[in-house]
Amino acid sequence: MMPVTILMLRPEDRIDCSAPLVAQGAAAVPEAAGVAGAEPAAEIMAAGGADLSPAVTSGCDRADWIVAGFDLLAEEGWSALSPARIAARLSGSEAGFFLYFSDLDELLQAMFDLWERLALGPLAAELPTLPPDGSSSATREAARARLAELADEGEGAPAAAIETALRERAASDPRARAAVERVDRHRLGGLSALLQAAGLSEPQARQRAEVFYAARIGLDYLHGTTGLAPAAPMRALAAAVLGLRKAG
Amino acid sequence: MMPVTILMLRPEDRIDCSAPLVAQGAAAVPEAAGVAGAEPAAEIMAAGGADLSPAVTSGCDRADWIVAGFDLLAEEGWSALSPARIAARLSGSEAGFFLYFSDLDELLQAMFDLWERLALGPLAAELPTLPPDGSSSATREAARARLAELADEGEGAPAAAIETALRERAASDPRARAAVERVDRHRLGGLSALLQAAGLSEPQARQRAEVFYAARIGLDYLHGTTGLAPAAPMRALAAAVLGLRKAG
Repeated sequence: MMPVTILMLRPEDRIDCSAPLVAQGAAAVPEAAGVAGAEPAAEIMAAGGADLSPAVTSGCDRADWIVAGFDLLAEEGWSALSPARIAARLSGSEAGFFLYFSDLDELLQAMFDLWERLALGPLAAELPTLPPDGSSSATREAARARLAELADEGEGAPAAAIETALRERAASDPRARAAVERVDRHRLGGLSALLQAAGLSEPQARQRAEVFYAARIGLDYLHGTTGLAPAAPMRALAAAVLGLRKAG
Repeated sequence: MMPVTILMLRPEDRIDCSAPLVAQGAAAVPEAAGVAGAEPAAEIMAAGGADLSPAVTSGCDRADWIVAGFDLLAEEGWSALSPARIAARLSGSEAGFFLYFSDLDELLQAMFDLWERLALGPLAAELPTLPPDGSSSATREAARARLAELADEGEGAPAAAIETALRERAASDPRARAAVERVDRHRLGGLSALLQAAGLSEPQARQRAEVFYAARIGLDYLHGTTGLAPAAPMRALAAAVLGLRKAG
């Protein structure tokens, strides 16, 4: 539904892995990683050292490891995530992983954080300033069009698989649960505001936002269990949510 | 939404724990359990033995252990399930557990099986025989009333917590996943038939069944993450699903 995948990363979240580096050495050992934080790979490498792997020397930075983690998660699930497996995706070495993360747990936290940051973006950033009573017909039309777009988003995308995986992990991991809770509240609020901008009363907007968002979660889940295609029912629901609107 | 809890067990699923037993002895050791299967406790006990715990002597049978497992699951989640914890709920001993199950895994399988069997029951058993075209107005009214009932079911019940827990486990346990997949297909089909009986065309009925069921799953999930109350949006959705019906 919402932007969570590699395709949606902003430019500042990524560094070109093919960029030339200013130094050749790297202290590519786990012990050096605890203090590495989010520094550019080139700076780390200025410390000198041996055991240069492709991932260490290529200029891949912290965000690349996080994105590779999401790719692996979408394809194979949580159990597939390990420094070695993620390094293999980047044609790198496990040592490269430890330049940025002290352990797998630190990468998981970074994944929760990035997913949440992207998911907490505005639902309708492109709308003109919205008067809460939906009095402007241009605003109403823009809001209705945006709801239709939201109904279509995520169709077949890795984003849905990643989000479902995060919801599953939330059952046993308090950090994932906290991120999912904040995102769910944010989206319910954003959808409710959008529906008010589309002309619905506040109580109607809140209730229909709940139905719309719950259906999105459930359809993505049922896609996994029954192969059901979410697009058509979501579009029909979006139309119903708006079409049922009563005047005033 | 659907019957999965202790309250919904049929009489044949339970045996009165206070019933008198015909024998006093019991081979209450784990090694004896592999062959115990679903035999009545009294027969097992005829083998003689010592270490009689309350659960062994009380007449609690296999179903009681399964139900106690569901109760513990609803309250504390999968990690709480152990022979010792379940025995404590029944005021019994761990040895009593092993009269019926060779290990915890066998109990889990029995829980998946029972949940699936109850969930695969008819969605609308009480309806009169339904002509598929919904031509009888009595049938239509009965089907519409049943949908409204389904919208209300499960409100605040342990059933929703158990079902959410099963969906979470389905991510990592193929047996749970298989059960959830069969149940999801069954319910989608049953809801679609119900909506056709209520007068909707087959394509409409199928699509709205998907939305209705997906919203149920999502609202139960959001109840956990945001505290949202599912009843009002589900009732509104049931009305919309039927109210949007077009003639023919």
